[in-house]
Amino acid sequence: MSKKPLNIGMIGYGFMGRAHTNGYCKVSNFFDLEYEPVLKAACARNAEKVQAFADNWGYESIETDWRALIARDDIDAVDICVPNNLHKEIALACAEAGKMILCEKPLSMDTAEGEEMCQAVEAAGVRNMVWYNYRRVPAVTLAKQLIDEGRLGRIFHYRAQFLQDWTISSDLPQGGEALWRLDAEAAGSGVTGDLLAHCIDTALWLNGSIDTVSAMTETFIKERVHQETGEVMPVNIDDACTFMGKFSNGSLALFESTRYARGHKALYTLEINGEHASIRWDLHDLHRLEYFDHRDDSIVRGWRSVHVTDGDMPYMDKWWVPGLQIGYEHSFVHQVADFLKSLEEGEAPAEPTFRTALETQKVCDAVLKSAANGSWEDV
Amino acid sequence: MSKKPLNIGMIGYGFMGRAHTNGYCKVSNFFDLEYEPVLKAACARNAEKVQAFADNWGYESIETDWRALIARDDIDAVDICVPNNLHKEIALACAEAGKMILCEKPLSMDTAEGEEMCQAVEAAGVRNMVWYNYRRVPAVTLAKQLIDEGRLGRIFHYRAQFLQDWTISSDLPQGGEALWRLDAEAAGSGVTGDLLAHCIDTALWLNGSIDTVSAMTETFIKERVHQETGEVMPVNIDDACTFMGKFSNGSLALFESTRYARGHKALYTLEINGEHASIRWDLHDLHRLEYFDHRDDSIVRGWRSVHVTDGDMPYMDKWWVPGLQIGYEHSFVHQVADFLKSLEEGEAPAEPTFRTALETQKVCDAVLKSAANGSWEDV
Amino acid sequence: MSKKPLNIGMIGYGFMGRAHTNGYCKVSNFFDLEYEPVLKAACARNAEKVQAFADNWGYESIETDWRALIARDDIDAVDICVPNNLHKEIALACAEAGKMILCEKPLSMDTAEGEEMCQAVEAAGVRNMVWYNYRRVPAVTLAKQLIDEGRLGRIFHYRAQFLQDWTISSDLPQGGEALWRLDAEAAGSGVTGDLLAHCIDTALWLNGSIDTVSAMTETFIKERVHQETGEVMPVNIDDACTFMGKFSNGSLALFESTRYARGHKALYTLEINGEHASIRWDLHDLHRLEYFDHRDDSIVRGWRSVHVTDGDMPYMDKWWVPGLQIGYEHSFVHQVADFLKSLEEGEAPAEPTFRTALETQKVCDAVLKSAANGSWEDV
Amino acid sequence: MSKKPLNIGMIGYGFMGRAHTNGYCKVSNFFDLEYEPVLKAACARNAEKVQAFADNWGYESIETDWRALIARDDIDAVDICVPNNLHKEIALACAEAGKMILCEKPLSMDTAEGEEMCQAVEAAGVRNMVWYNYRRVPAVTLAKQLIDEGRLGRIFHYRAQFLQDWTISSDLPQGGEALWRLDAEAAGSGVTGDLLAHCIDTALWLNGSIDTVSAMTETFIKERVHQETGEVMPVNIDDACTFMGKFSNGSLALFESTRYARGHKALYTLEINGEHASIRWDLHDLHRLEYFDHRDDSIVRGWRSVHVTDGDMPYMDKWWVPGLQIGYEHSFVHQVADFLKSLEEGEAPAEPTFRTALETQKVCDAVLKSAANGSWEDV
Repeated sequence: MSKKPLNIGMIGYGFMGRAHTNGYCKVSNFFDLEYEPVLKAACARNAEKVQAFADNWGYESIETDWRALIARDDIDAVDICVPNNLHKEIALACAEAGKMILCEKPLSMDTAEGEEMCQAVEAAGVRNMVWYNYRRVPAVTLAKQLIDEGRLGRIFHYRAQFLQDWTISSDLPQGGEALWRLDAEAAGSGVTGDLLAHCIDTALWLNGSIDTVSAMTETFIKERVHQETGEVMPVNIDDACTFMGKFSNGSLALFESTRYARGHKALYTLEINGEHASIRWDLHDLHRLEYFDHRDDSIVRGWRSVHVTDGDMPYMDKWWVPGLQIGYEHSFVHQVADFLKSLEEGEAPAEPTFRTALETQKVCDAVLKSAANGSWEDV
Repeated sequence: MSKKPLNIGMIGYGFMGRAHTNGYCKVSNFFDLEYEPVLKAACARNAEKVQAFADNWGYESIETDWRALIARDDIDAVDICVPNNLHKEIALACAEAGKMILCEKPLSMDTAEGEEMCQAVEAAGVRNMVWYNYRRVPAVTLAKQLIDEGRLGRIFHYRAQFLQDWTISSDLPQGGEALWRLDAEAAGSGVTGDLLAHCIDTALWLNGSIDTVSAMTETFIKERVHQETGEVMPVNIDDACTFMGKFSNGSLALFESTRYARGHKALYTLEINGEHASIRWDLHDLHRLEYFDHRDDSIVRGWRSVHVTDGDMPYMDKWWVPGLQIGYEHSFVHQVADFLKSLEEGEAPAEPTFRTALETQKVCDAVLKSAANGSWEDV
Repeated sequence: MSKKPLNIGMIGYGFMGRAHTNGYCKVSNFFDLEYEPVLKAACARNAEKVQAFADNWGYESIETDWRALIARDDIDAVDICVPNNLHKEIALACAEAGKMILCEKPLSMDTAEGEEMCQAVEAAGVRNMVWYNYRRVPAVTLAKQLIDEGRLGRIFHYRAQFLQDWTISSDLPQGGEALWRLDAEAAGSGVTGDLLAHCIDTALWLNGSIDTVSAMTETFIKERVHQETGEVMPVNIDDACTFMGKFSNGSLALFESTRYARGHKALYTLEINGEHASIRWDLHDLHRLEYFDHRDDSIVRGWRSVHVTDGDMPYMDKWWVPGLQIGYEHSFVHQVADFLKSLEEGEAPAEPTFRTALETQKVCDAVLKSAANGSWEDV
Repeated sequence: MSKKPLNIGMIGYGFMGRAHTNGYCKVSNFFDLEYEPVLKAACARNAEKVQAFADNWGYESIETDWRALIARDDIDAVDICVPNNLHKEIALACAEAGKMILCEKPLSMDTAEGEEMCQAVEAAGVRNMVWYNYRRVPAVTLAKQLIDEGRLGRIFHYRAQFLQDWTISSDLPQGGEALWRLDAEAAGSGVTGDLLAHCIDTALWLNGSIDTVSAMTETFIKERVHQETGEVMPVNIDDACTFMGKFSNGSLALFESTRYARGHKALYTLEINGEHASIRWDLHDLHRLEYFDHRDDSIVRGWRSVHVTDGDMPYMDKWWVPGLQIGYEHSFVHQVADFLKSLEEGEAPAEPTFRTALETQKVCDAVLKSAANGSWEDV
């Protein structure tokens, strides 16, 4: 075959490390592209674990020091799949070394870090992308298409939720490798950066920028045993975060995230109400897009449940036949495909770039500041 | 007020006696009609019980002998709400006495009885109607309208179910006043006449006549205590009845009813698949009509969930405001309204008449014969 | 019959006048109670219209001056179904005249008015109730029962929406008899008092008091023709209102209402997330209660769709058989029944009383103040 | 790595060729097994097309004659993904050559062919399996587990549908490589072997054997252009097939399949009603299992929507985290995994074997015979 290799260096081997790697593995079987990812090296501090990971997925080699990985000449692109507090340092080193970067979301611990990262990649001129994968769930991509076609008209409301229930038990510890998402030192924040960031990225993409917010956070369980020390320590993350706000286009924002919504495992929902039409989507039934069009004949007007599996829907010509669903993991395959295609086509980068993802960071910062101060904050 | 009275004589006071009476009571508050029902007399063998019923609903008087009721000059219309094996005798007497008849479904024990009843009312020239109330659930009436407008195109499939689960326990007795539906002597058949008859009436109305059927029946619990005698006796009704068949328009029929479908209380469903569009409805969510139109733009094509509560939908200009549902009982109010309107307008009777309802009887007979013989039977 | 009459004087004949009257008419047919409402008089300024209303429903007489109605000796209870700005004056007069009062919601234009009304009825010792009818939708009453049984455990989240789409067109006028809800002079506020008030009443009942709120309002269409003057005038109501807050029990509140949510006619939804179980309900499918119980076996754990039609569910022993739904209007029948029962039983009043409903008014006031000031406000 | 290779020879490269190959590719990344599939050779008559297929998926070599493929020493297992009329000849050759066989469903053109194939593989002692993949959709596997645990009790009803709408247009041609499913010469039958066979396989697995059936078939469009000849020719397949029947356990069967159900792309549904509990599933929302348990407290009893994504559900410990769905294609990965595991564990073959799949063939034959004769037929 005449495909051009894109040599990948993966840092991390957790949930996201697997999801991204699966994307690299599958993309060439389903998308006809000039470039093809090659699993060159996997990197993590624990040599045994990263070797097992590399063996399982077919990475050709391992590294236990990310600086060594970045230093290698045979690596074209680095995938950063480590806790948020390490993103910046690694990204800056990658930029310096001229590597392309595919960074797990959220971009950074805060806006300041993110700005530094943007400047570094832009100065270095390296391709960069952040894994806000939900943009590539076909139903969400279809929502974008419908909006861009003007089907909704003037937008009045945008609301989104990300509801989970996995931290309700007070017996759950915090911190350490497995539970770094419950430790603000590693994660930056709780549900705001982990869950709301997804909702915000999609919202900015679909509905434009947010100008101003008023937020509320809560930590329901105040102390938990730390997984590494065994000590009972204060919980320093937000368990729940809600905010109201206004978009630049005049529509109202209402966002909520929590890990204390019994009955919801990973219920990311969004709804957009426009003058003519409305759209709803939820991650638990991720290949259905609900669509309501007021222009339908009134006696047969109702929410349409669109089963997003046909060949004329985004990405779906690559997969099976109408009626047969793909999975969550395919959103990563699509993002890899779009990244490879951007290499092939030249100028335009695959979105969201660091600069684009920084906008989400700004909203998160404003949200956390508002919650801390009890005030409305401009983004 | 200048409304013309229609003096009602009600025979029976059970579930249907209440439902019809409620229809007579409410119709004038919501429909602007020339005629208004007057609750003249209620009739049943048990004087105490019928007096309580009459007091509760405002019937002016009682009778304990239906012949006495029919003999009264102040009764214009008789409502027959007694077990099926009594329909014929009462109807014939009504016809002879020149009374209008509103008869609970099914029309009769069998086609022969029904034919006799039709001839009697036609010879006497008395108005007659059978209470197949589901035609007047607004969503079902709307389905009829959509079909009549030609929105579906050529019909390929019609399927219906009526699923219940209330007789699963083997401790449930049979027979007597409360459970006559479980006794073929009183009911004629089991689920065929009780449940399938509803499905068939709607189908004939929406999709035309059925030509031929192949059926299967089953009695899962073979013996039950009789409620009156206390004796264990063989169960003589069909607990479940399924049939396949062909409509005159070339479409295929698939019908099922049972009282052994755990999880379904009274799940009457219907679905019609046409060349261009399809329709679904179910009694458990009776004010939603599901509609699929293949002519929609493909990327926003899906089943529409039409919430049948707007003023431009059948009967709904009489009730509340969009979004607010009416109930099951309103189907009877609508049927009363249509009956009264037919008096006002003259010629055309309110459907289904005895003659129309006889068609359902013919299908039921063919179904039971097919099940008994293991053969295909013409209707 | 030996029923005791409760002579009703109805002021108003609009949507709510009809809904309440229907409740008075039906209650005795379905509930076995000592008292029975008697439609003594209907009152409104327009003699012709109120006469037609009285004729239609069977009110024995009419009045065109509400003071005359209140002055009549043969009136026991006055039902106030007029725009919000008239509630106080009429209620004070009723109290002075020793009449029971059934007042349409919201109680008053604001907390100050409401406090005055409470003091008046308490000083006079007259029975009083506010028509927050959604408490008596069986599924909502069942939710209350489940919470009181302790099935949910510690509550983390309470969220509610009331979404409509009927004012999106800029051609819709404001004001006048039909559209007083769009005029702050008559209504006090827009969606806050009209829609959110319902959500708040239910929430306080189910989840206790709200301590503090942060709110946002928006008026999307800034000017509309006034229906009476024909002049283009500024719109003075809130088209949308959203608020976050905290309940006294530590749970988080998130409430939203709007008349600009395309696709929703009257979608009142609520969801409560507890430690062990969660509940969801929505007005568009009002006889289904969604229930999730984490204590279920994990492999068969899921949201249960409870069809609230069985005889052991609140109020449902009075109606039909399992599987058959009642309608929206039945919530008013239930409220009448509970009011009559409270007369029969003596001490405890039927809820919500004016005093109880005042709590909703306080939350509304705090919400409107917060929205105006951009600040968090204590209730 | 120390994994044992299982060298695969694939015959065919269509929809199923891709789906199976994807299963071979992904299995080792997600399942920890002793064996690992190696894509040794792909085979089809058209050298160019099969080379492209091989290149795309990484098959090491190609063959254009299936006899040559079978003759190769480096092939352990042959995957038969060609039209049904070729299954027997290839399978017999494989058996003779001592190759394991993974055969696409349905097993054969009819029972006689299938019996011959069974005898051949059993005489040769080669492992054999048929790709009835729906058994390995986690929700369906979970249904099997619930039934085996006895949760449903005595079974009363089993019903299944497979509804499509892709052949409604009379412009669609028949026959040829792309449309051999519309040609009885290649396919054996229409929807019976293509769609009902899936429903029957699952049913026999979940509910035991079927004793007797009564069926009806229909061909709605009588003539179509043949894709290869361009001639208008009679359509010789069944467009729709429905049957009723009885299972050996006394429960009733009701099955339907069609390609003329507008609005349904690939709606395979099943429902089982037992004494205590019921189960529903449909392919359009394939990771939800609906479960109703009558033993729940009556006031919170309802259909549970189980989101089959948790780690304690069948196969789901291999994938992502709760709330995140896999896709249709994963059923094939699971089937490969189970096949490999059966090699590792020795005795018991992965189901369904040819012998097991022959039972489905027998039901299909009885169904087609019944439809032709208008008679009840024993299986």
